[in-house]
Amino acid sequence: MSQINQEQYLQQLGNNAKQASYALANLTASQKAGLLEAIADALTENAAAILAANAKDVAAAKADGLTDAMIDRLLLDDARLAGIIGDISDVIRLADPVGEEFGSKLLYNGLRLTRRRVPLGVIGVIYEARPNVTVDIAVLALKTGNAVILRGGKETLASNKLISDVIRGAIVAQGLPIDAVQFIDSSDRSLVTGLLKLDQYVDMIVPRGGQALQRLCAEQATIPVILGGIGICHLYVDKNADLERALEVIANAKVQRPTVCNALDTLLVDERVASTFVPQIAEYLHRLGVRFSVCEQSFALLDGLGFDVTLAKAEDFGIEWLSLTLGIKVVGDIDAAVGHIRQYSSGHSEAILTDDIHAAAHFMNQVNSAAVYVNASTRFTDGGQFGLGAEVAVSTQKLHARGPMGLEALTTYKWLAWGDYTSRV
Amino acid sequence: MSQINQEQYLQQLGNNAKQASYALANLTASQKAGLLEAIADALTENAAAILAANAKDVAAAKADGLTDAMIDRLLLDDARLAGIIGDISDVIRLADPVGEEFGSKLLYNGLRLTRRRVPLGVIGVIYEARPNVTVDIAVLALKTGNAVILRGGKETLASNKLISDVIRGAIVAQGLPIDAVQFIDSSDRSLVTGLLKLDQYVDMIVPRGGQALQRLCAEQATIPVILGGIGICHLYVDKNADLERALEVIANAKVQRPTVCNALDTLLVDERVASTFVPQIAEYLHRLGVRFSVCEQSFALLDGLGFDVTLAKAEDFGIEWLSLTLGIKVVGDIDAAVGHIRQYSSGHSEAILTDDIHAAAHFMNQVNSAAVYVNASTRFTDGGQFGLGAEVAVSTQKLHARGPMGLEALTTYKWLAWGDYTSRV
Repeated sequence: MSQINQEQYLQQLGNNAKQASYALANLTASQKAGLLEAIADALTENAAAILAANAKDVAAAKADGLTDAMIDRLLLDDARLAGIIGDISDVIRLADPVGEEFGSKLLYNGLRLTRRRVPLGVIGVIYEARPNVTVDIAVLALKTGNAVILRGGKETLASNKLISDVIRGAIVAQGLPIDAVQFIDSSDRSLVTGLLKLDQYVDMIVPRGGQALQRLCAEQATIPVILGGIGICHLYVDKNADLERALEVIANAKVQRPTVCNALDTLLVDERVASTFVPQIAEYLHRLGVRFSVCEQSFALLDGLGFDVTLAKAEDFGIEWLSLTLGIKVVGDIDAAVGHIRQYSSGHSEAILTDDIHAAAHFMNQVNSAAVYVNASTRFTDGGQFGLGAEVAVSTQKLHARGPMGLEALTTYKWLAWGDYTSRV
Repeated sequence: MSQINQEQYLQQLGNNAKQASYALANLTASQKAGLLEAIADALTENAAAILAANAKDVAAAKADGLTDAMIDRLLLDDARLAGIIGDISDVIRLADPVGEEFGSKLLYNGLRLTRRRVPLGVIGVIYEARPNVTVDIAVLALKTGNAVILRGGKETLASNKLISDVIRGAIVAQGLPIDAVQFIDSSDRSLVTGLLKLDQYVDMIVPRGGQALQRLCAEQATIPVILGGIGICHLYVDKNADLERALEVIANAKVQRPTVCNALDTLLVDERVASTFVPQIAEYLHRLGVRFSVCEQSFALLDGLGFDVTLAKAEDFGIEWLSLTLGIKVVGDIDAAVGHIRQYSSGHSEAILTDDIHAAAHFMNQVNSAAVYVNASTRFTDGGQFGLGAEVAVSTQKLHARGPMGLEALTTYKWLAWGDYTSRV
């Protein structure tokens, strides 16, 4: 696309979405449920075609030499597609946050003031690989009366294109504007940069992807961005932790699903228990396939015992491992643990294991990440686990929404005031 | 400052603020009240010196040929300073939002989950002229346990520098870190751009100033920005409005304080009442000194009657007048009014005057600005009027806070979860 064509394309895309958002904003909960049911039906009817498109993506990915893990992420089969469609029913059953009024009051001058929860308007979502995100995000956006512009990764272009076409067909069949859902059908990367600057039309950008995508959005966007999904997560073993029960919780945080953002990256161990506990946990995790990147003190405790252990450089504690590598660092006390977390954390999830109520309270007060745990695995930071019913993203910034974002994070409010030809004195 | 020095200066500034924010985050409401009282006392004790510094700013402003209106904005005298200090007592009396827990629940696995309201951390505020903002923002930030970096306009450098020094002195005297409040003591504009990229330390940027500053922040910041304070406000006179009672409300919206963001910019008049009402309101407002920039239909009604009236170009309806000029446009019906508002509004405040309940409801549902009024002046969009007790800014974006921002907008929440060595299944 030439630069002028691209500019026109983006303006049109933005304006289409904005116009569609007006039609969506005042749909009732049952109208929106009807729409989502129609989408689920249409996806079911077109399952064979969707799987065929996905097979093309898979074949191209293999030809491009993508790893098996990456191919697995983009692969759809009957069961996975049925699961994705089944999830729509769960979203239909969630309460609709739109229309709620709150904070209502009668002002001194007789004005009746309330805040009404309304859709954000237009949401832009930029994501990678998994085709399920196309369905998830479209459904969550429509459930909350928002128009959405989707930009998926080039590895799943055929799958995403067909899925979004099927969704758009269902939208039109319900008498709603087709551009309620738009999919950027191009792998041209400069379109992403252009999308980030469509502040005239787009109200929020959600990047779902790695560090490079997050930074691109933070630096280029003139639209508010929800950064998130990067988790450099810590677990601190206090001197008063139950060291036997600690083993399983730490293993859960590290190995239950090591490739996700709420998995454990760095284990901090109080030096008063380090000499016994560091070899103990290393032994426990080693059997589960874990490698270690550790501080000098830990290295001295672990070297030569047959573990896969390397001495960490300071900056290694800033790595989100997303794998079976675990950082281990011995710290002098709880405040040193808090200090380490403040320096290296991405503000996602941190945990303390302790039987000391004072240590637990101190950790909760001093650590200011999106989720702070006492005696629990970091793996719970998730919309489903937190009972939100759905998850748009996990925010690691402090504005608007923090941690797992549910439906409410796709809404805002407007102030409504009723007067009787009321003037300000 | 050289570029390297500036980079070091900004890093130091950011880090100082972040460190100070840790000490502020867990202060109790009464500790914060004590701090604010100490600040009020210190400002009172140093009143003569503050007024002397302000006199320097005023003399420099006169020498630079600033307008009387601009000089009046930066001028302090005994009464104004006493007023600013008196406002601190009002903030002390407001409820402290920090520490509130909400949305608490017991999850299926025994985890006790709650959300606790906490300070944002570090807030950067960039503002122009008025020295009262230095006190207001410092006090609101400290009340909510936040550290703040202030960057005022060069016209009030001497006043702001002394005021912030007095505040910092009071902070230290309370045993708290001096860098809880920092003031950028330089009119070097590139420092602003640098501040906007300190995302490692600063959690939110609030620009309080005109369109150019807002755009600079939207385009340059890598930190979440609260845009706001630009009000292209509309009032629609429906065909079923009480035209006699309408006159005073419109006059209030336009002339009570024409230089502020919630003042009326464009009057939309239903064409079924235009031929009687447009000349009537023009006559009413003309006596109050109002000039008119109007559509062709209005021009035909008003030309030659002795009013100060010009024919508006389409883009003139996108002007925030901040003066006694009023745009007038005749529209076909309520949906044409809504369409005009969607095209030209900055999302700040809009009003309808009508006795028709259907028109009122339709307008409230269809217009999606921060504040929407039925039968009231747009001039109410204000933290004080809305009963928030204080106002950080008026947000015209949809994320985090919308419309008048009170203390709660300076906070976020963290998720806290208590388990019993709980692992995810």
